[in-house]
Amino acid sequence: MTDLLWQKPGVDVDAGIQAFLAGDDVVLDREFLLHDIAASKVHAQGLQAIGMLAEDELQSLSRELDALADDFRSGAFVLDERYEDGHSAIEARLTERLGDTGRKIHAGRSRNDQVLVATRLWLKEKLARLQSTCTDLARIALQRAEAERDIPMPGYTHLQRAVVSSLGMWWAGWAEAFIDDAARAADTLRWIDANPLGTAAGYGVNLPLPRDTATRALGFSRLQVSPMYAQLSRGKFEMAALEALASATLDMRRLAWDLSLFTSAEFGFVALPAQYTTGSSIMPNKRNPDVIELMRASHASVAAARTEIEQLLSLPSGYHRDLQASKGALFHGFGRGLAALSLLPGLLARLEWRQERMRAALEPALYATDLAVDMAREGMPFRDAYRLAADPARWEDGDPAASLAGRVSPGGAGDLRLEALKSRLPAGDS
Amino acid sequence: MTDLLWQKPGVDVDAGIQAFLAGDDVVLDREFLLHDIAASKVHAQGLQAIGMLAEDELQSLSRELDALADDFRSGAFVLDERYEDGHSAIEARLTERLGDTGRKIHAGRSRNDQVLVATRLWLKEKLARLQSTCTDLARIALQRAEAERDIPMPGYTHLQRAVVSSLGMWWAGWAEAFIDDAARAADTLRWIDANPLGTAAGYGVNLPLPRDTATRALGFSRLQVSPMYAQLSRGKFEMAALEALASATLDMRRLAWDLSLFTSAEFGFVALPAQYTTGSSIMPNKRNPDVIELMRASHASVAAARTEIEQLLSLPSGYHRDLQASKGALFHGFGRGLAALSLLPGLLARLEWRQERMRAALEPALYATDLAVDMAREGMPFRDAYRLAADPARWEDGDPAASLAGRVSPGGAGDLRLEALKSRLPAGDS
Amino acid sequence: MTDLLWQKPGVDVDAGIQAFLAGDDVVLDREFLLHDIAASKVHAQGLQAIGMLAEDELQSLSRELDALADDFRSGAFVLDERYEDGHSAIEARLTERLGDTGRKIHAGRSRNDQVLVATRLWLKEKLARLQSTCTDLARIALQRAEAERDIPMPGYTHLQRAVVSSLGMWWAGWAEAFIDDAARAADTLRWIDANPLGTAAGYGVNLPLPRDTATRALGFSRLQVSPMYAQLSRGKFEMAALEALASATLDMRRLAWDLSLFTSAEFGFVALPAQYTTGSSIMPNKRNPDVIELMRASHASVAAARTEIEQLLSLPSGYHRDLQASKGALFHGFGRGLAALSLLPGLLARLEWRQERMRAALEPALYATDLAVDMAREGMPFRDAYRLAADPARWEDGDPAASLAGRVSPGGAGDLRLEALKSRLPAGDS
Amino acid sequence: MTDLLWQKPGVDVDAGIQAFLAGDDVVLDREFLLHDIAASKVHAQGLQAIGMLAEDELQSLSRELDALADDFRSGAFVLDERYEDGHSAIEARLTERLGDTGRKIHAGRSRNDQVLVATRLWLKEKLARLQSTCTDLARIALQRAEAERDIPMPGYTHLQRAVVSSLGMWWAGWAEAFIDDAARAADTLRWIDANPLGTAAGYGVNLPLPRDTATRALGFSRLQVSPMYAQLSRGKFEMAALEALASATLDMRRLAWDLSLFTSAEFGFVALPAQYTTGSSIMPNKRNPDVIELMRASHASVAAARTEIEQLLSLPSGYHRDLQASKGALFHGFGRGLAALSLLPGLLARLEWRQERMRAALEPALYATDLAVDMAREGMPFRDAYRLAADPARWEDGDPAASLAGRVSPGGAGDLRLEALKSRLPAGDS
Repeated sequence: MTDLLWQKPGVDVDAGIQAFLAGDDVVLDREFLLHDIAASKVHAQGLQAIGMLAEDELQSLSRELDALADDFRSGAFVLDERYEDGHSAIEARLTERLGDTGRKIHAGRSRNDQVLVATRLWLKEKLARLQSTCTDLARIALQRAEAERDIPMPGYTHLQRAVVSSLGMWWAGWAEAFIDDAARAADTLRWIDANPLGTAAGYGVNLPLPRDTATRALGFSRLQVSPMYAQLSRGKFEMAALEALASATLDMRRLAWDLSLFTSAEFGFVALPAQYTTGSSIMPNKRNPDVIELMRASHASVAAARTEIEQLLSLPSGYHRDLQASKGALFHGFGRGLAALSLLPGLLARLEWRQERMRAALEPALYATDLAVDMAREGMPFRDAYRLAADPARWEDGDPAASLAGRVSPGGAGDLRLEALKSRLPAGDS
Repeated sequence: MTDLLWQKPGVDVDAGIQAFLAGDDVVLDREFLLHDIAASKVHAQGLQAIGMLAEDELQSLSRELDALADDFRSGAFVLDERYEDGHSAIEARLTERLGDTGRKIHAGRSRNDQVLVATRLWLKEKLARLQSTCTDLARIALQRAEAERDIPMPGYTHLQRAVVSSLGMWWAGWAEAFIDDAARAADTLRWIDANPLGTAAGYGVNLPLPRDTATRALGFSRLQVSPMYAQLSRGKFEMAALEALASATLDMRRLAWDLSLFTSAEFGFVALPAQYTTGSSIMPNKRNPDVIELMRASHASVAAARTEIEQLLSLPSGYHRDLQASKGALFHGFGRGLAALSLLPGLLARLEWRQERMRAALEPALYATDLAVDMAREGMPFRDAYRLAADPARWEDGDPAASLAGRVSPGGAGDLRLEALKSRLPAGDS
Repeated sequence: MTDLLWQKPGVDVDAGIQAFLAGDDVVLDREFLLHDIAASKVHAQGLQAIGMLAEDELQSLSRELDALADDFRSGAFVLDERYEDGHSAIEARLTERLGDTGRKIHAGRSRNDQVLVATRLWLKEKLARLQSTCTDLARIALQRAEAERDIPMPGYTHLQRAVVSSLGMWWAGWAEAFIDDAARAADTLRWIDANPLGTAAGYGVNLPLPRDTATRALGFSRLQVSPMYAQLSRGKFEMAALEALASATLDMRRLAWDLSLFTSAEFGFVALPAQYTTGSSIMPNKRNPDVIELMRASHASVAAARTEIEQLLSLPSGYHRDLQASKGALFHGFGRGLAALSLLPGLLARLEWRQERMRAALEPALYATDLAVDMAREGMPFRDAYRLAADPARWEDGDPAASLAGRVSPGGAGDLRLEALKSRLPAGDS
Repeated sequence: MTDLLWQKPGVDVDAGIQAFLAGDDVVLDREFLLHDIAASKVHAQGLQAIGMLAEDELQSLSRELDALADDFRSGAFVLDERYEDGHSAIEARLTERLGDTGRKIHAGRSRNDQVLVATRLWLKEKLARLQSTCTDLARIALQRAEAERDIPMPGYTHLQRAVVSSLGMWWAGWAEAFIDDAARAADTLRWIDANPLGTAAGYGVNLPLPRDTATRALGFSRLQVSPMYAQLSRGKFEMAALEALASATLDMRRLAWDLSLFTSAEFGFVALPAQYTTGSSIMPNKRNPDVIELMRASHASVAAARTEIEQLLSLPSGYHRDLQASKGALFHGFGRGLAALSLLPGLLARLEWRQERMRAALEPALYATDLAVDMAREGMPFRDAYRLAADPARWEDGDPAASLAGRVSPGGAGDLRLEALKSRLPAGDS
């Protein structure tokens, strides 16, 4: 390993302890090294603006930081165990290339605000992607709601057939779900969109760092003012981001449940394109909807990541090394959650309905509620109508189209209000 | 128990099973019975608007619903095991008082949308209270940051003394934390502010219910369009609300940790008013900061509530009885979380600092970082300055006021930017 | 409220703070007041044995403790907000009835070891009940496995029909599951079966308390030696008990999932006795398997209880008030979990299978694996046999009885080994 | 990638979907590939025993499996994305080397029981290591309890100084904690020590596999009888193992909290060897107890792993792909948890106490409880003695040695009963 930045002479290093301390930290830092580099450039600009770097020093630093980013992207630079972490690696590289100029970069900052700003930029990127994926999902669901508006299917409560429903209603439900999830991703992004760079180790620094300029340069919408709060927000903001993601992965989990049932032989409502299935190593006859099951499972990783961070946050104010364990958790949760969500639009677009199976499931009992309300409409107290309609002798096969057309309460099959849902999608985004 | 709405003739009822099914549901329903009644009035208005009730029937229903609310508030009506749940109790009372008119109230609705709308109204109330409590906390923290701006204290990382800090920085950190928490409460409130009434059991109803009017009458900012999504949002919205609450209770947990340490004999930074302490049954000498510890503990209840709901949400779409278990969890989490948060403003306002203890903790090593940066400002590469400043021989007692005044990076003790924080508080709210 | 044991003169009490401190503690203490009384008797015996109480004082205390237990059971004594907690209530009652003798009972103990010993006794009782319920479940499952050994049903993987299976295999699976759960309950009971009484506030006491005698008198199998560990085990033992319970409730959750599917119209494998179902307030046609759904849901409460305690246990050694929040969580988790498990034996005993529906689901593809293995048995490499058997042209309707009889790997339908399972049930218990 | 075992002709493979399905599965499989190989050998022996393999085929398979294990250990064979998973990799290698003989290995097994048996063997190994580490910890704690038996320190409740305590009591507390943790690891190991090999995909197989022989050959103490239960135990056993681990990591978390406080300047009770500390990138003066903090943090990973699995286990019986996500979680939890626990014995052995700091913290109030009990011993009702002893005027500096010697309740400083604790350590293990 390169020299530890903070190592003091005469202290023995125990390899086992060092390995424990390092963990997989430096490998995890690959995930946001480019953001760390970007923020380092802005920090250098700030140092130059307040006279801590000469203009030519800034130029060299910027150039080498760009070169490092290029090398990292190309694989010419590998971030590995030679370094304590990604933050140290950047300084080590600059020092190696630029000597004293490299040794100046860390004035007025700490690895504490370095990791905060890199994580923040990373989170913003992921939340933006979450928002756009949810928007895509909503759009597809709306398109299919429109296209398949009047195709009847059974509606269930308690997994028991309840009333006649429609693909229009089913798709509209998921559309509104993902519209809300997109909105929440956007809210969360806005909420965490604050710049921690320049707060150092949580107590500020005796330099007039141009934090407002840095905030604009890095594309943040506001300054995270308090250095102590910058530290307190570690884990807190990560949890909020994971919770926004969880909102979508929980919806996906329920959607995957529907599809898992619908693709069973017993329901048989949906046929899945072959590329979404796998086989068995022992049972030659099997085609299994593994993709759906892994989508359903993916929320577990998001939940675990959130738990891991929440468990850490029982601490006094100020930085504690415990907080570093939040990094791997965050990457795990977003890695799994977004990977699964990203496949969902394609899957939804390709679902093939087996309409005859859905039609066959519309037994007479499913019209009983319509019947009760019909009687109520003619003046019978609803509770009496309900009792009459509970008599199986009164149930008879009905016309699903008529049942659906009569469901005129707003949002019902007879008045889906897809336009109202569409109006909540980002404008200009078609 | 009064007759079960749905009971069919000839089915034996098993008392043990009925007790299990009932659980403490009806007792829990006390929590939002008034909201259920309010929504019932609006539902009745809707029925009248579409001709399902005569004007005088609406008048009777409204009058009896008001009377029921009064009786509930006064204790003249007790919601207990005589009823299957609060929803049934309302219908039973109306039927008892108004006969056939009472039996009409349930046309076009289900207990499914009844519980949704009552919960939604309850959540809005709680989130509004969360927001205002967080705002109060931020305001107190800002006032004390201003008043005690220059009182020095040690700043810690890893629970080790690090640099000179100040009460101004400490308070400002908590101020910004609770400002964010208030903002999140507001975001969450806005996000869930959608009216589910009129979605019945998740598939709409064959009546042209005036849902837009009901939305306005109940004070919702938008319609929750899809009946299926109304069901899918059960648990999802509750989790979001608990997560917003958790954001504040996690901050409170960290604040309580600070106070728990600061009130120890070893730190001795804070004296707690006697009413915030208790004694021991065996140790006559003890005064214990139980209030602080229960504040720290209260997040556990919020976390548990969220877990309880998250565990339920692995289900296909549509209503399932599992979801009913979310109700008690929600009340538990908000009950404990808000109770603890509500005591925090008073506690913060009354904290007594022991300045001499904080001053005594400012040992020479705490000026080493200032020293390193000072050397860097004079041109020495920071990494070299750091190495020199690491030599204890260079550490000497410093002037905390000078150290704080020099901490001029925005947000630092020399430039706290309290105005920027204040500007994020709700306007006109003083 | 009666006087606080520890109150000092001249300290104002704030009603809001006191209410927050009290919470619902005293109400929760009803749950184990009888255990607290039982342990108090043993503590008094110890005090007498070491000369801290006269023989007649011990007699009076024992008599009054018995009377209090009787009054509590009969309702003549109500534990309510008049008392700070159940522990104080006992001392208050003894003092009220016996004057100075009552004021002697607390020598050498603290509410800390009082709550520990009462909770420990309560946990032992609940774990014993968990064990016996799981044993009942296993016994019923084994009986039905035997009785319905050869009734064929489809076996599923990925919720897709896979191979021919049998009720024998299905029941045997649940039998072994609950046998393991019973074993774990027993292990856990044994693990926590240690007496904390006599450890006071975590640092022992300057009296030669006869803790070994007390250990025997209270029916514990060993002494919990270290007073500090007695405190450290708070929450830890509760979590272990909840985890043992969770092992069973998670199995119940999966069993409830099977039944939820099997009672759907689409599967239709199981008919549920009417008393296990409920109706809908709006849909006259519905019969819903609410009991099954609440069984499935009940694990959520166990999980939440465990989370609540786990969240508390980030503390230094020694007692902290935070730990008190573990009490309500424990009662909630065991209350819900055991209530649901207790109904399960009756439900399992009453399940009615619809054999014709199961039989109809045995499509030709379900014999493909048998076919592949058959070919392998005749010498073809399995992987080649697998490829041949994957050809639908080779699938044909088979004889489920033959398929089951041929499944001779131990544990398979042809060799269920129910005796091996039975041998793990508690002896003499038939 | 090598051919998928189950791939059917004419099905297009989508690279994105395949990548999602694969995840990091094959990389994770490195963790237990050697166990998979060991179980494969036993499976081949079984096939030979029932005539499915010739003796020379068994010899070749055994030889190649050994060679594969050697190659894997040496790095000559790398398990990577060329394979769908480790299970397929083994078959692929055998087929490549042995042709038809390799194609025979999978007769009578499924990847389902392959992963079960490999995981089970892995879990047994880890639980054994957990047990031995906890035993080491207990042994060190007992040694230091004995060596430092009479060194006084303050005892705390609520983080407030309470009574005089001793290092003997402190160490004995941790000793008993880790003795219990070792016992739980052993219980859990015994509980999961059941052989799932031979259960195939959950429904047995039409071959008379010699499962009892395999059980002995693999070192299991019993057969896991039911194939369906073998599937149901996936996740369930992993959770139990993580819970046993969590029992120890939660104790470690509380121990780390003690050390985190004790190494603060304010407490100053403990000096940490330099190799257990790190520095800061910006603050030259810092030495931070990172190792302690990462130990404290490590429970979060165990908790997260358990959550991840618990979230998955809401499924009907039978295998579902969801369950595969339990693998990474398990490795993460055990990886972090055991790594931290493994460093703890060395740390505990090297702790240096600063006795003068502990002695200085023994203020007069800490003798008040002794005083109250002393008065009670002379006949005064304890509650009255308590009131008198609450008067600070009565507090005076005491002799800690006398206080400790007088603490004669079993387990107290005057009667530590270390022998009783020692007797619970594994015999012959010194």
